[in-house]
Amino acid sequence: MATPTFSAVAMSDERILDPRLRDRIVSAEAAAALIQPGETVAMSGFTGSGYPKAVPMALARRIEAAHQAGQAFQIKLMTGASTAPELDGALAKAEGIAMRMPFQSDPDARNRINAGTLDYIDIHLSHVAQHVWFGFYGEIDTAVVEAAAIREDGTLVPSTSVGNNKTWLDLARKVIVEVNSWQPAAIEGMHDIYYGTALPPHRKPIPLVRGDDRIGQATLRCDPDKIVAVVRTHGPDRNSPFTPADETSRRIAGHLIEFLKHEVAKGRLPANLLPLQSGVGNIPNAVLAGLAESGFRDLEAFTEVIQDGMLALLKSGVLRYASCTGFALSPEANEAFKRDIDFYRERIVMRTQEISNHPELVRRLGCIGMNGMIEADLYGNVNSTHVMGSRIMNGIGGSGDFARNGFLSTFLSPSTAKNGTISAIVPMVSHVDHTEHDVSIVVTEQGLADLRGLPPRRRAQVVIDRCAHPDYRDALQDYFDRACRGSYGKHTPHLLPEALSWHQRWLDTGTMRG
Amino acid sequence: MATPTFSAVAMSDERILDPRLRDRIVSAEAAAALIQPGETVAMSGFTGSGYPKAVPMALARRIEAAHQAGQAFQIKLMTGASTAPELDGALAKAEGIAMRMPFQSDPDARNRINAGTLDYIDIHLSHVAQHVWFGFYGEIDTAVVEAAAIREDGTLVPSTSVGNNKTWLDLARKVIVEVNSWQPAAIEGMHDIYYGTALPPHRKPIPLVRGDDRIGQATLRCDPDKIVAVVRTHGPDRNSPFTPADETSRRIAGHLIEFLKHEVAKGRLPANLLPLQSGVGNIPNAVLAGLAESGFRDLEAFTEVIQDGMLALLKSGVLRYASCTGFALSPEANEAFKRDIDFYRERIVMRTQEISNHPELVRRLGCIGMNGMIEADLYGNVNSTHVMGSRIMNGIGGSGDFARNGFLSTFLSPSTAKNGTISAIVPMVSHVDHTEHDVSIVVTEQGLADLRGLPPRRRAQVVIDRCAHPDYRDALQDYFDRACRGSYGKHTPHLLPEALSWHQRWLDTGTMRG
Repeated sequence: MATPTFSAVAMSDERILDPRLRDRIVSAEAAAALIQPGETVAMSGFTGSGYPKAVPMALARRIEAAHQAGQAFQIKLMTGASTAPELDGALAKAEGIAMRMPFQSDPDARNRINAGTLDYIDIHLSHVAQHVWFGFYGEIDTAVVEAAAIREDGTLVPSTSVGNNKTWLDLARKVIVEVNSWQPAAIEGMHDIYYGTALPPHRKPIPLVRGDDRIGQATLRCDPDKIVAVVRTHGPDRNSPFTPADETSRRIAGHLIEFLKHEVAKGRLPANLLPLQSGVGNIPNAVLAGLAESGFRDLEAFTEVIQDGMLALLKSGVLRYASCTGFALSPEANEAFKRDIDFYRERIVMRTQEISNHPELVRRLGCIGMNGMIEADLYGNVNSTHVMGSRIMNGIGGSGDFARNGFLSTFLSPSTAKNGTISAIVPMVSHVDHTEHDVSIVVTEQGLADLRGLPPRRRAQVVIDRCAHPDYRDALQDYFDRACRGSYGKHTPHLLPEALSWHQRWLDTGTMRG
Repeated sequence: MATPTFSAVAMSDERILDPRLRDRIVSAEAAAALIQPGETVAMSGFTGSGYPKAVPMALARRIEAAHQAGQAFQIKLMTGASTAPELDGALAKAEGIAMRMPFQSDPDARNRINAGTLDYIDIHLSHVAQHVWFGFYGEIDTAVVEAAAIREDGTLVPSTSVGNNKTWLDLARKVIVEVNSWQPAAIEGMHDIYYGTALPPHRKPIPLVRGDDRIGQATLRCDPDKIVAVVRTHGPDRNSPFTPADETSRRIAGHLIEFLKHEVAKGRLPANLLPLQSGVGNIPNAVLAGLAESGFRDLEAFTEVIQDGMLALLKSGVLRYASCTGFALSPEANEAFKRDIDFYRERIVMRTQEISNHPELVRRLGCIGMNGMIEADLYGNVNSTHVMGSRIMNGIGGSGDFARNGFLSTFLSPSTAKNGTISAIVPMVSHVDHTEHDVSIVVTEQGLADLRGLPPRRRAQVVIDRCAHPDYRDALQDYFDRACRGSYGKHTPHLLPEALSWHQRWLDTGTMRG
């Protein structure tokens, strides 16, 4: 005979179908109490989707209380990628994070990182799972993972991101599951969780040859004995407001799309291109909007994140499918996604991020990487992460996985920032995330620099001519001309005392203008 | 009835077994005359092995004669990697190279590159074949490829390097084959030429799961109609003198081997490690010599080049097999190789460089990359190519293929250069080839910095404490301490006006010492 408590739970928890786990439903506070100071905690979440909504907040309150009582309490925090104010923001404000990896974009956390009070490790998203498996980050004490549901067999239906959840569930000593009834139950079947990975020397080829191949299973396995708490939540993913493309973004997108058409005409790309990887933000959204009107058909996306623009491309049939590991949708797009989820489930495959970003697959499929940047230099080195060489913005994310191993690596940015006081084209980048060896194409609203097959000095001239803002073009040309005369070596001419002077001038005077 | 000419050829050319091609035997001069000004010429050769010995010299003479007659004559030159004075040296001295890619190490060519008179494109060795297939370098007019023999069916037995020969033979409009009788005929069967590559979207998994798997055929295919000349040669590969390890190299090797043993003890590496990739030079040779005495057994090598030390490891049984794309042997080691070639043919697999360096395979096998460097900075960025940021030394070669996609990336260097006037540990590297995201381990004779799982400021302290030479340690600490106080951002602290000042001081005063 079921107890009243059990009945009550059962009635309200049609999403928690494994009876063993219904007994473990607790409050977020009770779950957070299972996390001890000093633990390494691995949470779900990728680009503001699929992160736990309640336990991190409860944990932040617990940490604040401990601090007020004079007790030390910090955790090491890992996720898929960026999360939201309820996770990174709350824990950072509570001074609860001793170490953060592999990616974040929260303003509070960023401020602490740049103040030197929060240690942050910024690594390739394809490296995260394997480096944790390799033992480079020690053991994972607790995993906190959002699910859309728990099935009868105890497997978890992932929600709007997969990220590193497979690895966290496999490796953590104890697991807390948040079952979020805000997430559509009908998302079940959209995921493809590949269980064929292994540690070397036992690795096998990954049997994926088309971006929409399904090679795994729909749910995440988890030893039920490790699940110490199940928490019910009902809360939305991070709000990612959609802003229509401005003129600058539209021009950047236009240059890139014109280039892609040119490559098709030259026979270097198939008529339906190759699988697209698209970073997140206004410029990628403008590119996607541009593709919608470009005449391309049967496009494919093998990427990390699905934004509003990609849903629209799927809907219009321009995009045949999209493979991803997470979403970053506006509230309106999320509503549309839920409304037409049966349509999208046929056209979207959600994978772990070690698969979405896997070098083997990115190379095999020949992805076209499209990523933003902070700055590029004359020779095509790209800084994706550090403002003025020392202050981190977000992190490298998956851009390196696609830039190094894909068919083409394109980097997109307005030619200036901060009301024109910063040139995105500089003599020497103040930090390098993508080397000259890994950058094919640089695009600003001014134009597109095709660096393929060019030696350094020819690259420099193309970057100046095509990408630099007119306000900075003469100064760049002057630097380059003088470097060609006065540089120690003339292979990659530089004047070292001036190479980073534009950045220092901005720090000193508020503008890079001389 | 055979003509006397044919008979004479047949008798002296047991290495040219396809009768169709015996008719095309000509002098090097006659073959070189088939190469026209402005052509893109793709030659064999990798690390001074397997390059054509006669046609490039004849071509250089032809170019010199043209120049003396007031005629323009330059070619675009592609190879596998570095070659020898008879190829890069002769053509550079003749001012015959308009563009060179993807790697070279010749002093004459280097001087011209750094004088700004020879355009050089320095790219990842794993990218070369695919970028040429993608059409990023235009069409190949002529391939000049050394072979050990031509079989009855017209296929070519490669000699001591494979490099990009498969791609050159597939894509070139016309082909010149040099058959070098100095190369051992018994090398036949050592090669494994994989013909399963394709352009995206038609790529399939590469069916290699152990480093010594054979997935291809022993010879190179070539449409006989494209072979316009066959040239007989009898000349040795580049002399790579073996110098016994000095104390500095032995100490670097000792630190690395101690670390590898520690990783085995911690369970992070199998007892026989994972497949080793080793750069070329005295320090790698010292590492190999150290491994010979380390107690390791059943080691594996999945690498680009086999040096003397690796042959010795194979002979002693410490190394079970070695996969490579070329050799760099001393004359003595070459003699030993020829003497015991039946032994080595069982234990060495020679592949195309797109396979030896393929990201899919490097990641699957979990290679341990061991490469030299020019300098590293506080945060683990590595410069492999540019002295003082502008003057190229050799090139990135395959180091990036292994650093990005392998299990571990280690970078090795003495802590100082040029009689102590240069510190290999600097505040900021003057050029970046391997970013902070791709460098696990930095080793100098002073010690080993394990950067895994460390945020930037902790990396800096470990690099200063473990790797810096005592003559520069205080100055590095001083820079770092002041940067931690005065930097714009404290994530990766830098003082931009000083970041590259050590390099400029060396240019100005001949020493980095303050």
